Amino acid sequence: MKLGMIGLGKMGYNLVLNLLDHNHEVVSYDIDREKVNDIQQEGAIAATSYQDLVSKLEVPRTIWLMVPAGKLIDDVISQLIPYLQPEDILIDGGNSNYKDTIRRAEQLKEKGVHYLDVGTSGGMEGARQGACTMIGGEKEIFAILEPLFRDISTEDGYLYTGKSGSGHFLKMVHNGIEYGMMQAIAEGFEILEKSQFDYDYKEVAKVWNHGSVIRSWLMELLEEAFTKESRLESIKGVMHSSGEGKWTVETALDLQTAAPVIALSLMMRYRSLEEDTFAGKVVAALRNGFGGHTIEKK
Amino acid sequence: MKLGMIGLGKMGYNLVLNLLDHNHEVVSYDIDREKVNDIQQEGAIAATSYQDLVSKLEVPRTIWLMVPAGKLIDDVISQLIPYLQPEDILIDGGNSNYKDTIRRAEQLKEKGVHYLDVGTSGGMEGARQGACTMIGGEKEIFAILEPLFRDISTEDGYLYTGKSGSGHFLKMVHNGIEYGMMQAIAEGFEILEKSQFDYDYKEVAKVWNHGSVIRSWLMELLEEAFTKESRLESIKGVMHSSGEGKWTVETALDLQTAAPVIALSLMMRYRSLEEDTFAGKVVAALRNGFGGHTIEKK
Amino acid sequence: MKLGMIGLGKMGYNLVLNLLDHNHEVVSYDIDREKVNDIQQEGAIAATSYQDLVSKLEVPRTIWLMVPAGKLIDDVISQLIPYLQPEDILIDGGNSNYKDTIRRAEQLKEKGVHYLDVGTSGGMEGARQGACTMIGGEKEIFAILEPLFRDISTEDGYLYTGKSGSGHFLKMVHNGIEYGMMQAIAEGFEILEKSQFDYDYKEVAKVWNHGSVIRSWLMELLEEAFTKESRLESIKGVMHSSGEGKWTVETALDLQTAAPVIALSLMMRYRSLEEDTFAGKVVAALRNGFGGHTIEKK
Amino acid sequence: MKLGMIGLGKMGYNLVLNLLDHNHEVVSYDIDREKVNDIQQEGAIAATSYQDLVSKLEVPRTIWLMVPAGKLIDDVISQLIPYLQPEDILIDGGNSNYKDTIRRAEQLKEKGVHYLDVGTSGGMEGARQGACTMIGGEKEIFAILEPLFRDISTEDGYLYTGKSGSGHFLKMVHNGIEYGMMQAIAEGFEILEKSQFDYDYKEVAKVWNHGSVIRSWLMELLEEAFTKESRLESIKGVMHSSGEGKWTVETALDLQTAAPVIALSLMMRYRSLEEDTFAGKVVAALRNGFGGHTIEKK
Repeated sequence: MKLGMIGLGKMGYNLVLNLLDHNHEVVSYDIDREKVNDIQQEGAIAATSYQDLVSKLEVPRTIWLMVPAGKLIDDVISQLIPYLQPEDILIDGGNSNYKDTIRRAEQLKEKGVHYLDVGTSGGMEGARQGACTMIGGEKEIFAILEPLFRDISTEDGYLYTGKSGSGHFLKMVHNGIEYGMMQAIAEGFEILEKSQFDYDYKEVAKVWNHGSVIRSWLMELLEEAFTKESRLESIKGVMHSSGEGKWTVETALDLQTAAPVIALSLMMRYRSLEEDTFAGKVVAALRNGFGGHTIEKK
Repeated sequence: MKLGMIGLGKMGYNLVLNLLDHNHEVVSYDIDREKVNDIQQEGAIAATSYQDLVSKLEVPRTIWLMVPAGKLIDDVISQLIPYLQPEDILIDGGNSNYKDTIRRAEQLKEKGVHYLDVGTSGGMEGARQGACTMIGGEKEIFAILEPLFRDISTEDGYLYTGKSGSGHFLKMVHNGIEYGMMQAIAEGFEILEKSQFDYDYKEVAKVWNHGSVIRSWLMELLEEAFTKESRLESIKGVMHSSGEGKWTVETALDLQTAAPVIALSLMMRYRSLEEDTFAGKVVAALRNGFGGHTIEKK
Repeated sequence: MKLGMIGLGKMGYNLVLNLLDHNHEVVSYDIDREKVNDIQQEGAIAATSYQDLVSKLEVPRTIWLMVPAGKLIDDVISQLIPYLQPEDILIDGGNSNYKDTIRRAEQLKEKGVHYLDVGTSGGMEGARQGACTMIGGEKEIFAILEPLFRDISTEDGYLYTGKSGSGHFLKMVHNGIEYGMMQAIAEGFEILEKSQFDYDYKEVAKVWNHGSVIRSWLMELLEEAFTKESRLESIKGVMHSSGEGKWTVETALDLQTAAPVIALSLMMRYRSLEEDTFAGKVVAALRNGFGGHTIEKK
Repeated sequence: MKLGMIGLGKMGYNLVLNLLDHNHEVVSYDIDREKVNDIQQEGAIAATSYQDLVSKLEVPRTIWLMVPAGKLIDDVISQLIPYLQPEDILIDGGNSNYKDTIRRAEQLKEKGVHYLDVGTSGGMEGARQGACTMIGGEKEIFAILEPLFRDISTEDGYLYTGKSGSGHFLKMVHNGIEYGMMQAIAEGFEILEKSQFDYDYKEVAKVWNHGSVIRSWLMELLEEAFTKESRLESIKGVMHSSGEGKWTVETALDLQTAAPVIALSLMMRYRSLEEDTFAGKVVAALRNGFGGHTIEKK
C-alpha cells in the first residue's frame, strides 16, 4: 500500500519504519527537513511540502497525520484540504481530543473526505515493533485500510471501535487507566522506600512480573528502570502530563461518574510540579491561628 | 470548686486562667517549675510534685490532666495512683485516643477512681475565654462536675456525650472535620492564587464571613492571617498534624466508611512534608520508559 | 433607586422583597405571570414583557438578571438588546460560568451596555435578609450601584472583586469550598453514625457551634436539620449538584492545581446518584477471576 | 522433600497439588476431614491431628501453614508448639499482617523454632501452576528451603526479601497496588459504559492486552470475564475486601506517606457495600437548608 505520513516525531518516525518493514510505500513529510532526509535513508519517499506529498500519492489517497494534538491538526488539515479530492482518507493517529475528532470528521465529510481516528498505544517501541491501535470512523473505510492496521499492530492488536471519535475516546480512557495504574505502582514503591525493610527494587519488580496478580508491562518497564538505577537516585519526581489524563477526568465529570483514582493520579502529578503550595500556607496559617502551632518560615 | 491541674502547656495554662476567672481554686503542677511560678502569680496554688498536688486537695479529689496524648498519660496516671483514693476523679482533657481512654477508665475503675474524658476544642482562645467541651464517662460523675464544665465553656458549649471514650471520640471526629474544612478552604484560595484575577484575600475572607454559606470561625481566622500578611509570603506551606486526623481516618477504615475528604486532607499534609517523592520518581521513570518523555534530573 | 428584575425564582423573588424593604422600586418580570402578580402584591411594579419592563425604567437603566445559568442568559440578553441603549447596565446575579460572563461582557461592550457579574451567596435567607455579594466588572459602574449592593447585602457583605468575571469566579470557588466543607461535615457524622457510641446529633451540632474550631453557618443549618428529624430518617442520601462544584474542579485542572478535597466532594455526589456501579462489577469480576472470591448476584 | 501442610482451603489445596507435581511428600491436615480425604486421593499423606502430622515428619521438620490470617494462626501455632523441637521450621504462607509475623517469629525463636513468612500471589491458578512467592525470615533457613520455593513458583517467581516480616509486608503492598490497578481499570470501563459510544468490552480488553501500555494479567482476567458475560449483567457491583488493602493504607499513614490512589480504591469498596449513606443524608439536608434544594425521600 502507498500512503502519506505527516509528522516524523518519536511516534511518527517509528511508525514509518514499521510500515516500511511491511513493504508499504510511505511518502513522508515533516517541517524538520532533517527528519525527512533521515527517513528517506531508511527507504521512505521524501516530500518537501503538503502539495508535494499529495502529488506523490494516487487517488483515493491515504494520509496519516502524526502531529501533536490540538490546533496544529486543524492547521495541517486546512492546509491539506485544497489539494485533496473526495474519497481521500485522512487518519489522525495522534492523541486528539475526541470532541475535536468528531467535529473534524463532520467538516471533512462536507468535502467528501473520510476521516479515521486511530488511538495508538504501546509507546515508541509499539510504534516501531507492533502497536495497539483503536480505530474509529466509517466501517467501510476501516475495512479498506484494515491490512494496514494489521501490519503495524502487534498480533490481535487492532480494533475497529465504532463511529467517529470512538478510537480517540478509547485511547483517552486507556491513558486514564494508565495514569491510575502508574500511580498505584508508584505509591506501593514509595511505601516500600519508607518502610523498615531494605528491598532490592529491581528484584521486587522482577518477582512481581513472574506469577503475581499485578504482572504487567508497566512493571516490566519498571524492572528495566531499576536495572539502570537501583533507587532512581538521579531522577526528580516531577510528573508531567500531556492532556489525556485531564480529558479523562473532565469526561468523567461530564458523565457524572466518580473516577477518584484517575482524578487523584492526575492531581498528584500537578502537585509534583510545585515546590510549595498556597494551600499549604493557608493550612499552616490556620493551625497557627487557632492552636498556636509553629509555622515554618521560608 | 477546688481541683488540681497537671500540665501547664498552651491549653492547660489558659484553662487554669479561665478557671481562676470563675473563682475556682486550682492546684497546679507542671514539670517546668517556671510555668508553675507563673501561674501562681496569676492566683493558682502551686504544687511541687504529684504528691504535693494530691495532698492539697480534699477528698474526693478532682484532678484535670492536660498533658500530651500518648504514653505520657499512662505515666502520669501510674505515678498518681499511689496517692489517690476511691471516688477520686481524674479528667483527661487532652487529645487522647478514645481506645486508650476506654482502657484507662477500666483500669482506674478497678481502683474505684472515676475517669472522665473531655475533648476540648476552640484552641488557646477557647481554653482562655470559653471552650467547647465534649465529656464522656459516668453520667453521675459528669453531673457532679457539670458546674465546672459550664464555667470553662462558652455558653451552650459543653455536652455530656455518653459512656467512657465518647468525649474523645467526638473530639477526634471534630478534628477530622476540621482537617477537611481547612483543606477545602485552602484549595479554594490556591485556585484564586493561580487564577487570572487579582483578589485581595483579606477582603475575600472578610466578605465570605458576612452572609455567605461558608462563613465560619476558620474563615475569620484566615481573615486575621491575611490581615497580618496579605499573601502569606513568609510562610512555608508545610502542614504538620498531631494525630487526630490520622485516628479519624483509621477509625473510618475500621468502620468500613468512605471518608475520602478527611483522608485526602491528611494525605496532602503528609505530601507537604516532602520536597520530592519516590512515587514521583517511579512515574517519571515509567513515562520515560514507554514514551521517551524527558526526565528532570536532580 | 429604580431597577428591573428579570427572573422571580427562589433567589430573585426574595431579592425583590429585600430591595423593596430598602425602598427601591423594582420593575419585575418572569415568564410565570403568577409570580409577577404575587410580587406586585408585595409592592413591586409588574412588567408583562421585556419591552414593557424596559419601557418602565428611565435611562440609563439598571436591569438585574436572576435566571438559571447557561444558554437561558444568552437568550434573555439577545431578547433584551433591541430595547437597550448605550450606558444601560445589566447585572447577572446568577451562578453563571465566569467564562461565559467574560464573553457576554465583551459582546455587550460593543453595544455600549455595561455588564456586572454578581456572585450571590447566603441562600434564600441571604437573598431575603442580607446576602453576600461579590461583584465583578467596570469599577465605575460598580461605584454607581454600590448603594444598591450595600442595601441588599448583610453588613460588610459585598465586595468589588475586579474585572469582568471575577465576581462569578469568586462565587464559583466559594461553592467549591462549600462542597468540601459539607462533605467533611457529612463524613464526620457518618463516622459518628457507624460508631459504637450513641450520640444525639442535634446536641453534637449545637455544641460544635459553641466555641469549637468548626463552628460555622453550615453547622447551624445542620443543627436545624437534626432538630426537625433527629437521624434524618426520611431523607435519601442522594446528593445533587448544580454545576459550580464541577466548574471549580475543571478550573483547578486548567490551572494544574491539586484540589483533591473539592474533586472528591463532587465525585461522592455523583456516586450517590447510582444504586450500583459498573466499576464495582468490574472489580467484583476480577476478584472472582484471580481469587475465586464470591460474586454477589443481582 | 517432605513437609507438612496445615490448611486445605482454596490456596492450600492447590499448593499441595503443586507440591505433589514436583515429587514432594506432603503430610496434609485440615479441620475438614473431607478435604484431607480428597487430597489423600491425590497422593498426599493424610494427618488426623496436629500431633499426627508432626509425628509423620522427620526432624528438623518443615510445616507450611496456609490458614486464614489473624488469631487463627496464633491458635494453630500454640497447639503445634508442644510437638515441635528446636530447628523445626514453620512457614506462614497466608496473608498475615507483617507486625504479627514479626511478633510470632520472635516468640518462636525463643523455642528455637524458625519462622518464614511467605507472601503468595497469583491466585488459585498460581498456587496450582506456579505462584509468585516473597519470602522473609532467616536467610540460612530460606537457603535450606529454596528448592521448595523454586518448585512451587513460576520461573523467576520467588524472592528472598530480607528479615522476618519482609515477605508479608511486600505481599501487603503488592495487594495495595492491586487494589489501585483494579480500581483504575474499573473506572475506565465505567466511563466507557456511560459514554456515547457502544464498545464491545471483551474486544476492548483483548486489544488492550495486545501491545498497549496497560497490558497486564488483570486485563487478561477481565477479557475472560467479559467473554463469559459481555456486560457483567448478573453481577452486583459490591466490592468486598479482605484486609491487605486496609493494612497498606494504615501502613502508609504510619509512614506519613500520601497514597491517595490506594486509599480511594479501598474507600470506593467500602462505599459499594452501602445502599445509602448517612453522609449523603447530611449533604442533602444541608442543601435543602440553605438553598431550598429538593430532598429525595425514602
